[in-house]
Amino acid sequence: MHYHYMENKINIAYLELAVSLAREGMEKGMGGPFGCVIVKDGEVIGRGFNQVTSSNDPTAHAEVVAIRDACSRLGSYQLGGCDVYTSCEPCPMCLGALYWARPERVIYASNREDAADGGFDDAFIYREIQLAPEGRKLAFIEKPLPDALQLFRKWKEMINKKLY
Amino acid sequence: MHYHYMENKINIAYLELAVSLAREGMEKGMGGPFGCVIVKDGEVIGRGFNQVTSSNDPTAHAEVVAIRDACSRLGSYQLGGCDVYTSCEPCPMCLGALYWARPERVIYASNREDAADGGFDDAFIYREIQLAPEGRKLAFIEKPLPDALQLFRKWKEMINKKLY
Repeated sequence: MHYHYMENKINIAYLELAVSLAREGMEKGMGGPFGCVIVKDGEVIGRGFNQVTSSNDPTAHAEVVAIRDACSRLGSYQLGGCDVYTSCEPCPMCLGALYWARPERVIYASNREDAADGGFDDAFIYREIQLAPEGRKLAFIEKPLPDALQLFRKWKEMINKKLY
Repeated sequence: MHYHYMENKINIAYLELAVSLAREGMEKGMGGPFGCVIVKDGEVIGRGFNQVTSSNDPTAHAEVVAIRDACSRLGSYQLGGCDVYTSCEPCPMCLGALYWARPERVIYASNREDAADGGFDDAFIYREIQLAPEGRKLAFIEKPLPDALQLFRKWKEMINKKLY
């Protein structure tokens, strides 16, 4: 246990690496100034910088790119035993992605207010997500359909399904 | 204006198509029972179903797959003028992705409680996101670094940058 604890110390060098990736991506014109590395057992297994504008993909934030990179390398959709080092507090999309990937910890340098000050929507989306769907700036409209509910019943009855 | 309004009526057939995609993905064993279509000017320009477990990508939710598909087709990282029809209320990751993509509206059939009842973490993540980072089940740890803050100053000074 003690050994495991020592292995999993927070290592600021990884956070500095995430910041370097952020700088590299920004300077190359790939996207915003955000970078991320994912570490398992002392090894970097995933890395990413923001590529939204260069890849025409609004989901290509540093964390999402790094999660996809790490999962592809591990051949798994889960990041158990991994630490995520990211240059800035994850936005709600990336926070959600991290919950689905289930790493051990997320370590970040700047925060959502710093990002907002840089001109990014993080803090705005954090406020919006707490509102009821009908009160948001982006219209969320619920139209219940019996067939949609039936999907979940079928899912629960399925055997041999892979849970995530 | 009137014409534009008529064009943009909510069309339940698209929601039914999203539910069909969800069923297809589930039955083919691609992932969970979720589907999404993106519509612009009366045409389906993006579609997706959940592929988390089949592609080893925890970010491959129906909405993220459909957003990437639509953006790739449009050659843009923005979905102005688009409606998103999705079989279930977006999880926080997909909600964030939608805010970044900026469509006109999001129409969904089942909701986060239905998803939770189906065994999915949506409602849990919605609760977690509202907590202070240090109070969450997944550890979020802030380690401020001067270099990380400097990134945003550099970004603000950059000319010819592409905003998103």
